[in-house]
Amino acid sequence: MAEDVVTRDLQDDARSLIDGGEWQKAVALVSALHPADLADLVLSLEEDGRREFLDRLPTDLVGQLFEEVEDDELRQLIRGVGVEDLPAVLEEVEDDVAADVIQQLEPEEQAETLAQLDRGDEVAELLRYGDESAGGIMSRGYVALNEGISVDQALSYLRVLRPAADRAYYLYIIDSARRLIGTVSIRDLIVSEPSTRLGEITLRDVHAVSTETDQEEAALLLQRYNLLAVPVVDAEGHLEGVMTADDLIDVLQEEATEDMYRMVGLGDEERVFSPVRLSVKRRLPWMLVNLITAFIASAVVGLFDTTLGKATVLAAFMPVVAGQGGNAGTQTATIAVRSIALGDLDVGDIFRACRKEIFVGVANGAAIGSVAGFAAYLWKQNETLSVVLGTALFLNIVAATMGGVLIPLGLKSMKVDPALAANIFVTTVTDVMGFVFFLGLATLVIGRIA
Amino acid sequence: MAEDVVTRDLQDDARSLIDGGEWQKAVALVSALHPADLADLVLSLEEDGRREFLDRLPTDLVGQLFEEVEDDELRQLIRGVGVEDLPAVLEEVEDDVAADVIQQLEPEEQAETLAQLDRGDEVAELLRYGDESAGGIMSRGYVALNEGISVDQALSYLRVLRPAADRAYYLYIIDSARRLIGTVSIRDLIVSEPSTRLGEITLRDVHAVSTETDQEEAALLLQRYNLLAVPVVDAEGHLEGVMTADDLIDVLQEEATEDMYRMVGLGDEERVFSPVRLSVKRRLPWMLVNLITAFIASAVVGLFDTTLGKATVLAAFMPVVAGQGGNAGTQTATIAVRSIALGDLDVGDIFRACRKEIFVGVANGAAIGSVAGFAAYLWKQNETLSVVLGTALFLNIVAATMGGVLIPLGLKSMKVDPALAANIFVTTVTDVMGFVFFLGLATLVIGRIA
Repeated sequence: MAEDVVTRDLQDDARSLIDGGEWQKAVALVSALHPADLADLVLSLEEDGRREFLDRLPTDLVGQLFEEVEDDELRQLIRGVGVEDLPAVLEEVEDDVAADVIQQLEPEEQAETLAQLDRGDEVAELLRYGDESAGGIMSRGYVALNEGISVDQALSYLRVLRPAADRAYYLYIIDSARRLIGTVSIRDLIVSEPSTRLGEITLRDVHAVSTETDQEEAALLLQRYNLLAVPVVDAEGHLEGVMTADDLIDVLQEEATEDMYRMVGLGDEERVFSPVRLSVKRRLPWMLVNLITAFIASAVVGLFDTTLGKATVLAAFMPVVAGQGGNAGTQTATIAVRSIALGDLDVGDIFRACRKEIFVGVANGAAIGSVAGFAAYLWKQNETLSVVLGTALFLNIVAATMGGVLIPLGLKSMKVDPALAANIFVTTVTDVMGFVFFLGLATLVIGRIA
Repeated sequence: MAEDVVTRDLQDDARSLIDGGEWQKAVALVSALHPADLADLVLSLEEDGRREFLDRLPTDLVGQLFEEVEDDELRQLIRGVGVEDLPAVLEEVEDDVAADVIQQLEPEEQAETLAQLDRGDEVAELLRYGDESAGGIMSRGYVALNEGISVDQALSYLRVLRPAADRAYYLYIIDSARRLIGTVSIRDLIVSEPSTRLGEITLRDVHAVSTETDQEEAALLLQRYNLLAVPVVDAEGHLEGVMTADDLIDVLQEEATEDMYRMVGLGDEERVFSPVRLSVKRRLPWMLVNLITAFIASAVVGLFDTTLGKATVLAAFMPVVAGQGGNAGTQTATIAVRSIALGDLDVGDIFRACRKEIFVGVANGAAIGSVAGFAAYLWKQNETLSVVLGTALFLNIVAATMGGVLIPLGLKSMKVDPALAANIFVTTVTDVMGFVFFLGLATLVIGRIA
């Protein structure tokens, strides 16, 4: 797209000016960039340049950058601004963004920064909510009105208030105690007679979430009902804030990434160009877990040392047994984890899910067992070995599909994230079972293999 | 939430009425359900009951169901309605939904159904666009106005037109040839003086996508710039439709699922309770691919038959070598695939990504190699074996991180989906390399191991 080329040119020009120390020109130039693109530019600078450049950017522009980034990138920006200059910037952003920023600081820095903010109390209140709860990501930039006022009055009020465009699509109707009654869309406001009371056009059967609701659950609600925003209420039904579709898109992307990452034992926050030190710190622990589980599989193989000594040909087929079980198991686990995340599978469905997977495992196991047995016969010309391999594959693939359902659902029933290292646990099960089936059966008929 | 309980009660009551053949009461009851919940109910019915029930639902209600579901579920609904009754239902839905439905039919059924539709030509035009392009999912339900008219005239027009609430947030400003000039948000309309010309409040620097743009790319654009809708234009800049945030949430979820599934060799459309026959059909082909690659690893192990014959203890450590390589490789591949999907990694970054992963691989490989070597020494009391195992793990983990970057980026550079069976290919590489390193090194020093 042509405009992307313009954006890239602007970014490149600004980078040259920054490298050349022409700060004033650079600042003037970047004010034409969208904050998302400006954030990219700032993050691509070396640490020193970033600090000097952020120092010269107007605070409202820096505030906009804070709205665009999260986690690691947010921390990089905060370091660039410096904790001492943070309060001035935070005065320019909405409460929920300020809370996100402050959450990244050390406890004593948090207290100091809050104390210097005009709206410190409001921000502190948001900090009480869990990071991944609706309360933690909701915005307070909504328009709330009383049901008694007329459409005409509401329109006049909006003209004076001039809310940001993305906060103005729904008006929230509250009673005198700030309890949520319903919503009026701005479209309904426009198509109604000016004298109509808001109460007459209020949609009362609204989907609301509690401040404690998990962000993923809230996001699925918006997706299911195609909503652009959902009000957030406290236990007594008081309107506390609003989650909008753009927040929720971020949530859904984040949760999908988290699930994919956790399945293979990766930390949620790692990005492709995260510093090496962080990547190592986040991957190594799960590799150590995997090492322990791999040694369990080793110990199982060790039990069959005598059998292997009589027929080393068995060792050659171990990768087939482990590989097929691992593939079948991670296929099922992936479906289970994703279905749980999308709300299509829950602990109560365990029997139905197992029944289905047993059938799939039997069919795939029979097919793969036959093909592999036949291939092994062509290669080694040993009928018994072929039957042992085929049978072990059949049994292991059935066990793998079971493990693929039971491990995520088991984790979920223990209130643990079902994606947590699912692949590592599933492949341990399939390795161990596979070797027991294969080497165990071989031991029984070793005379006809060796 | 209380309203969810009500929804479930309504669904249960309706199901009892349907099972009892009390169709009229059931139809009256379900009209209180949200279409998303009604779709769930209809899909949970047995095929016969579903057909009879759909036959009795008003066509506009059936049309709303079509808007809620996709793929497999959409086909189930179509079968329930029957192709002959389809045109009556499709008259009730928007063009883009009608096109989605017709896309699911056989070619001759498509032609017949289109011929019976009043808007057959418009729908046929949408069918030209690729299923995963912006043109394929855009909606035509937008409001387009000329820049010459006043705010007051625009508001009067909206009052007469009464567009659906979710289509009314942006107005699209076009010239006399229907070329897109810019947008006006409904909020700007309200806060402006009634006599203002739309041209004066038009935002001209808008993000637009082409009808050919991939749906994922369009979705990332909305996410990046926090947009609620993006206009879709043809090659000459004529406004053809609009993609809205709710469509894009669906796209992002679909693409995340697709990536997770493809990495382990699953068909995109499988759901946890898809029929067994379909699940087998979709998983088996990739298991066969995996079988072939597993036999390659087997053949590699077979090359070291003599070595294994001298020291069967080596077989016991094969799962450790394969497991660690597989884990390190799929960790990196998962990050690479997800980063490509989120637009953070492209083929041009290959050197930077490899350089980073080499460092991570060296660090993790050194750590895991040392720990595993030490553990093996405690277990088997053989120094040479420990050094061979540790070295092989080190080399294999470095190779695995390389493979984890190079395979997805290689697929991408060949214009193949980088997620496509990435895990199967990565683990093949790590199995083969791991066994070559481990058994190869062992062969060199076999006298000190056996």
